[in-house]
Amino acid sequence: MTYSELSDQIFQKQSYLCVGLDTDPRKLPPHLLTEKDPVFAFNKAIIDATADFAVAYKPNIAFYEAQGPRGWESLQKTLDYIPASCFTIADAKRGDIGNTSDLYARTFFDPTAAGLDFDSVTVAPYMGHDSVTPFLAYKGKWVILLALTSNAGSTDFQYQTLSSRTASQKPLFEKVIETAQGWAGPDQLMFVVGATQTSELERIRQLAPDNFLLVPGVGAQGGSLADVSRLGLTKAGGLLVNASRSILYASNGPDFADRARDEAQRLQLEMAGYLTQIQ
Amino acid sequence: MTYSELSDQIFQKQSYLCVGLDTDPRKLPPHLLTEKDPVFAFNKAIIDATADFAVAYKPNIAFYEAQGPRGWESLQKTLDYIPASCFTIADAKRGDIGNTSDLYARTFFDPTAAGLDFDSVTVAPYMGHDSVTPFLAYKGKWVILLALTSNAGSTDFQYQTLSSRTASQKPLFEKVIETAQGWAGPDQLMFVVGATQTSELERIRQLAPDNFLLVPGVGAQGGSLADVSRLGLTKAGGLLVNASRSILYASNGPDFADRARDEAQRLQLEMAGYLTQIQ
Repeated sequence: MTYSELSDQIFQKQSYLCVGLDTDPRKLPPHLLTEKDPVFAFNKAIIDATADFAVAYKPNIAFYEAQGPRGWESLQKTLDYIPASCFTIADAKRGDIGNTSDLYARTFFDPTAAGLDFDSVTVAPYMGHDSVTPFLAYKGKWVILLALTSNAGSTDFQYQTLSSRTASQKPLFEKVIETAQGWAGPDQLMFVVGATQTSELERIRQLAPDNFLLVPGVGAQGGSLADVSRLGLTKAGGLLVNASRSILYASNGPDFADRARDEAQRLQLEMAGYLTQIQ
Repeated sequence: MTYSELSDQIFQKQSYLCVGLDTDPRKLPPHLLTEKDPVFAFNKAIIDATADFAVAYKPNIAFYEAQGPRGWESLQKTLDYIPASCFTIADAKRGDIGNTSDLYARTFFDPTAAGLDFDSVTVAPYMGHDSVTPFLAYKGKWVILLALTSNAGSTDFQYQTLSSRTASQKPLFEKVIETAQGWAGPDQLMFVVGATQTSELERIRQLAPDNFLLVPGVGAQGGSLADVSRLGLTKAGGLLVNASRSILYASNGPDFADRARDEAQRLQLEMAGYLTQIQ
């Protein structure tokens, strides 16, 4: 999916909601456990219930990997079921030396390899340019680079201040954002910025005025959709705000899909309001 | 495997060789392609040929993941085939927020999840403490944290100098090594230090005097085994030096396992010499 196609989807649906498919087999509604593939049955119901309100779906690969080979089969079926109009994100946080990153890129981008054909993958920046560029070699595919994450551990390294020969000092995450923009343009590069880090969002938007930001941490992790939207929205949309647990586990009963739909719609309506303000 | 058991293996075998199972289906000897599981057939032959000379095996997860579900089956069979006396490393470079890292830890450490029971997993530090500690909750299992990697991109962020209120400034990788030692002792924590970075190895050994270092980059990437050994060996061994391509692809013919054995033995004999010097 291209930058302008993603932007168009956002304004058509009046939503920048990304539904995180962090599907934990231990949390499924009991009535699904008799299904042949309970994880896929759950995801299918969630996608059916939320597709009117979401522009993106983000399976968290750990949840599938932890099931072994059958988890990868559930992931494959889930990806194939997501409507083509929705942007797909493999939340994998991969990154390795060049020849290995090339294989991770094949895994998620080349359907002749593992069968998967995601639009994008999340990548960890620690190993630098040659750990990221193999993903960018796939035209039309995206890297979503970790910049400032939503967890407590983000302070350990991401906020470390770098010394510089110039007067300006900056934290590591700003260096990551600046450096990575030399590797790709906003048509292939997004950044992960946690919703719990809104105090930094204004500065990040200055550093990356046109890049989409993938923002987790609204909902269960406590980030504010109003703050994220005020500081992060651009004329092209420029945001994908992820919600996972608050949608997936809105109910544990037979009505789980209806309650998931309600929560997705609630977020979409709030987003529609913020989108009106930028136009 | 415990610290002292690993150390004992090193002195018994007179080797700190780790064989990297970066098994690329596109590089297999042609006569194996008729096997039901060519990747496992290759790995089995490599393990049989090198187990006298290696103390550790390190499957690079990307190579299996890129094959989809059957790659995970090859990985499972390979792990089950590695002798119990050898240390096993899932080279996965994972790392995510706590609840997700917990699932990655289950994937590689809890055999009731994905079927895998590795001794250790490589972890990326960018997301900080709560992305690493879920792996450490598994007693007897190890985290091998990326510190200074062997690739060109290591200069992008790992070498960035941090400013400090004290007079001493340090690069990010030193901060990672110092900080992580607050999370676990040398009985559960190793660091990845590329063999191409020997100029830093003396300093790293000062910062982490007792931790094992996993050193990739000898062989195809050009690092010097002599330099790594001189600067990195400790009284307990303290090193796992990885070779992948130089062993796996020593020959592409029917003699591939014999040539792999020759190369593993050549490295072991060189290592035995260096081990003599520290005693």
